[in-house]
Amino acid sequence: MKFNNINVTISKNAKIGHNVLIGDNTTIYDNVVINDNVIIANNCIIGEPNNKYYEDVSNYINPTTIIGKNSLIRSHCIIYSGSKFDENFSTGHRVTIRENSIFGHNCRVGTLSDIQGNVSFGDFCSLHSNVHIGQSSTIGSHVFIYPYVVFTNDPTPPSIVCKGPTMGDFSIIAVGSIILPNVKIGKHCLIGANSVVGIDIEDYQLAIGNPAKPIKDVRDFKNKEGYMHYPWPYNFERGMAWEKIGFEKWKLDNGYEND
Amino acid sequence: MKFNNINVTISKNAKIGHNVLIGDNTTIYDNVVINDNVIIANNCIIGEPNNKYYEDVSNYINPTTIIGKNSLIRSHCIIYSGSKFDENFSTGHRVTIRENSIFGHNCRVGTLSDIQGNVSFGDFCSLHSNVHIGQSSTIGSHVFIYPYVVFTNDPTPPSIVCKGPTMGDFSIIAVGSIILPNVKIGKHCLIGANSVVGIDIEDYQLAIGNPAKPIKDVRDFKNKEGYMHYPWPYNFERGMAWEKIGFEKWKLDNGYEND
Amino acid sequence: MKFNNINVTISKNAKIGHNVLIGDNTTIYDNVVINDNVIIANNCIIGEPNNKYYEDVSNYINPTTIIGKNSLIRSHCIIYSGSKFDENFSTGHRVTIRENSIFGHNCRVGTLSDIQGNVSFGDFCSLHSNVHIGQSSTIGSHVFIYPYVVFTNDPTPPSIVCKGPTMGDFSIIAVGSIILPNVKIGKHCLIGANSVVGIDIEDYQLAIGNPAKPIKDVRDFKNKEGYMHYPWPYNFERGMAWEKIGFEKWKLDNGYEND
Repeated sequence: MKFNNINVTISKNAKIGHNVLIGDNTTIYDNVVINDNVIIANNCIIGEPNNKYYEDVSNYINPTTIIGKNSLIRSHCIIYSGSKFDENFSTGHRVTIRENSIFGHNCRVGTLSDIQGNVSFGDFCSLHSNVHIGQSSTIGSHVFIYPYVVFTNDPTPPSIVCKGPTMGDFSIIAVGSIILPNVKIGKHCLIGANSVVGIDIEDYQLAIGNPAKPIKDVRDFKNKEGYMHYPWPYNFERGMAWEKIGFEKWKLDNGYEND
Repeated sequence: MKFNNINVTISKNAKIGHNVLIGDNTTIYDNVVINDNVIIANNCIIGEPNNKYYEDVSNYINPTTIIGKNSLIRSHCIIYSGSKFDENFSTGHRVTIRENSIFGHNCRVGTLSDIQGNVSFGDFCSLHSNVHIGQSSTIGSHVFIYPYVVFTNDPTPPSIVCKGPTMGDFSIIAVGSIILPNVKIGKHCLIGANSVVGIDIEDYQLAIGNPAKPIKDVRDFKNKEGYMHYPWPYNFERGMAWEKIGFEKWKLDNGYEND
Repeated sequence: MKFNNINVTISKNAKIGHNVLIGDNTTIYDNVVINDNVIIANNCIIGEPNNKYYEDVSNYINPTTIIGKNSLIRSHCIIYSGSKFDENFSTGHRVTIRENSIFGHNCRVGTLSDIQGNVSFGDFCSLHSNVHIGQSSTIGSHVFIYPYVVFTNDPTPPSIVCKGPTMGDFSIIAVGSIILPNVKIGKHCLIGANSVVGIDIEDYQLAIGNPAKPIKDVRDFKNKEGYMHYPWPYNFERGMAWEKIGFEKWKLDNGYEND
């Protein structure tokens, strides 16, 4: 239904791999590389030119954008030039990703999320709907970031300082939380809903509140029904790197012995 | 201005009623039923295929989508197949509604709202801008949900559990509040701005805070100027089922004697 | 790359100035005035008709919309008719601005922001991503409003009351804060992240929390590293009216002696 070659515009300077589907009303700009078996749905913009384009429309050269193999970009996404996505990348609808952001493999970005540029993500990062990641954030692998979470980068707004937060592997940030500039969140952390995190959070800490404070080790946290779930990789594997293998075996095979 | 038949794509397998207007750059996919006197504005996608489509583009059959009579869908909306809207449905711009969601009559969904699928709404539900309703939520009738409210469904993220909240008739959730998984909000409740609701809230309670706690009966709540407004249906009727009738008479005529 | 005259629709009743670029898939409706040296990028809607259009599609007359000279409207924006923008206006992507809003010169509105109509802005207003400004808000000049901030206008929702907040010159509202109806925020204020402001805030106050309370004079506020930054105009000038002049000299030259 989506691939009728209606109002599709593909730059002559784009490279399109084998078995690629490009939806109606989609535009692929200069110097975009789309690898094999990728689906770009309808009404997308891939390789959006950066701000310099408007300063000199005629002479602008678009930086290279790379979409890894087996990726699925749903409709109405805007992906700027200069960003790179490793294989199995997928998105919801209306995602905006600014320039020079780097995603590892198997990352997912939910509907309406807004990635501000110059951000780096590890592998298997899962961002739900309407997540806002400010410039210069550094995010590990196997993380979950829930709706309406915001990463900020200016400690005394407005200023010329831009220091994004750092988020460690296997950490989780629940819905509506704000991560203040330059904060370091460790590995296997759990940040509760609607928190404002202004201090560094050590590995394995459950932190909540405004201002957020670490309140216990996640390994001691029982949910309402009284069962333990964290560290979550031992209890959740759908779509994860350790699916059908188990986290215990996977971590030994993949250099995560200490996690 | 909007209905010039420019770049409109309508599936041969869609059924379009009488006196229907379809805007420029809009696409209607397979098995969409649009009833009489509906306006679908420009740049909309109606009957968006679900995830199974991408697994087998050639053999996929799109579930039926029904848009009730006299509905108005503003521009840039994406409505998935398998969802059903009773009459007088209306939206703002850029609304996303996922598959298998059911809306009663006279519902409104504001700009940028993101309804995640498998959700049920009663009649006369009013969702303002940028509301996020997670999967499996159950929402009553005559409710108001204000901007940046989020309904969640996973009590120990990430997990395979998906238990959306339940919201009773005539309840109000103010701006920026988060409703945690499986929470039951009763009838005629008022949830204050920026609250995080993790416990069940009984009928007629005003609850606020993080974590939200019931602080008084809404019938005892006076605003800053000292007047009483709740239960609001006695004091507000614009666009409501009881407009020009009054809530007292309407509720007796419509089976709401106990409200 | 963006200006190929593909699927561009411009009303015969629009006035387009000199040296204007209009992107592919953009629609300009009736009675839009675009001044010289403006760039409207791709997939935009300028002069979106208001609600009365749908009541009588044939006889509707679109109010005048004015885009000031040297403005840059990025892709996928929807700007309603009846709004007016003074020179050097710029936007991110997917911005929605409803009818009858007035912007001074050098204003910026970030990606996904949703301006609800009948709002007035002074000059040099900077709204970041995903800001929601409710109807009838009044905003001064040289302000910064950060992501996910919401201005509200109904003190006892739902009701027929609509009283937007007022925000004074040089004030800053940090990420995720909610400004409650009819609240007056003075000049040079700083509202901390995730605050809910329900009381008037006097000039030069730093206010934080839910409910927000003034906690100190911004002129006494030191950041984590121990340095003073506020009033910020003395310490930040990039893109500001006083760039290369300095705030001290600028304010004397521009009638802000008392700021």
